[in-house]
Amino acid sequence: MDGLELASFQIISAVGAARSSIIEAMQLARQRKFTEAYQKIDEANQFLSDGHKEHVKLIQQEADGDQVPFSLLFMHAEDQFMTTYSLRDVAYEMIALWKEMK
Amino acid sequence: MDGLELASFQIISAVGAARSSIIEAMQLARQRKFTEAYQKIDEANQFLSDGHKEHVKLIQQEADGDQVPFSLLFMHAEDQFMTTYSLRDVAYEMIALWKEMK
Amino acid sequence: MDGLELASFQIISAVGAARSSIIEAMQLARQRKFTEAYQKIDEANQFLSDGHKEHVKLIQQEADGDQVPFSLLFMHAEDQFMTTYSLRDVAYEMIALWKEMK
Repeated sequence: MDGLELASFQIISAVGAARSSIIEAMQLARQRKFTEAYQKIDEANQFLSDGHKEHVKLIQQEADGDQVPFSLLFMHAEDQFMTTYSLRDVAYEMIALWKEMK
Repeated sequence: MDGLELASFQIISAVGAARSSIIEAMQLARQRKFTEAYQKIDEANQFLSDGHKEHVKLIQQEADGDQVPFSLLFMHAEDQFMTTYSLRDVAYEMIALWKEMK
Repeated sequence: MDGLELASFQIISAVGAARSSIIEAMQLARQRKFTEAYQKIDEANQFLSDGHKEHVKLIQQEADGDQVPFSLLFMHAEDQFMTTYSLRDVAYEMIALWKEMK
C-alpha cells in the first residue's frame, strides 16, 4: 500500500467515525438529550481533526512542488471529508432548532 | 464518448434526479405532507443507488490495479454524488423537525 | 502561479466568503432577523456565482478537448464549492424552520 492509499484509508476511517458521531448527535437532539448530543459533536470534531492532519500534509506536499498523483480513492476520501465537515455545521444548527422546541 | 465520460454523465443524471426529489421532499415537509415527503426520499434513494453503481464500478476498477485517469467532469460527478448523499441525510432530519412542529 | 492554481485560489476565496455569509444567515435566523438572513443568503449567492464562473470555464476547457491536469488544490477548491452550494440549500430550509417557530 503506497502513502497516498494509506492516507486515503486514514481519512476515510477518521471521517466515517466523525459522520457516525454527527448522525448520533442529531438523533440525540431529537430526543432532547442535548448534553450527550454536544458530546457526540465534540467526538466528531476530534475525528475530523485526525482526518484534517492527513489532508493538510498532502496539500502541503503539493504546495512544496512535490506533485500528488490522482487517485480515485483519495478523491473519494476528500469528498467524504468535506461533506462530513459541512454536515457537522448543519448538525449545530439542527441541535439549536431542537433546543428551541424543547 | 469514453467510458469515464459516460459514467460521469450517468452519475450526474442520476444524482441530479435524486437532488430534485430531495428538494421536493423538503418542500412537501414544509407543507406537512409527510407521506409524500418520504415517498420523494424513497425516490431519491433509488436514484442515488443508480449513481452508486457507477461509482463502485470505478472504485473497484482502480482497486484492481487498472488506474482510472483524472477527469474534471468525473470529479464534478463525484462531488455532486457525495453532496447529494449528505443532503439526503439532512432531509431526514428536516422532515423530523417539521413533523415535530405539526 | 499557473492558471489552474489561480483559478483554485479564486474559487476558494469566493466560496469561503459565501460560506461565511451562509453561516451568518443561519445565525441571524436563530435571532429571528429574517430580512437580514435573506440578505446574507443573497450575498452568498453573489459569491457562489463568482466561484461558478471559474468552475464553468475549466469544465468548458476540458469539454473542448484541452485536458485540465489534476491538482489537489483545485480538487479541494471544487469540494469547497460543491459543499457550500449544498449548505446554501440547507440554509433556506433552516430559515424556513426558524420562521415557523417565530
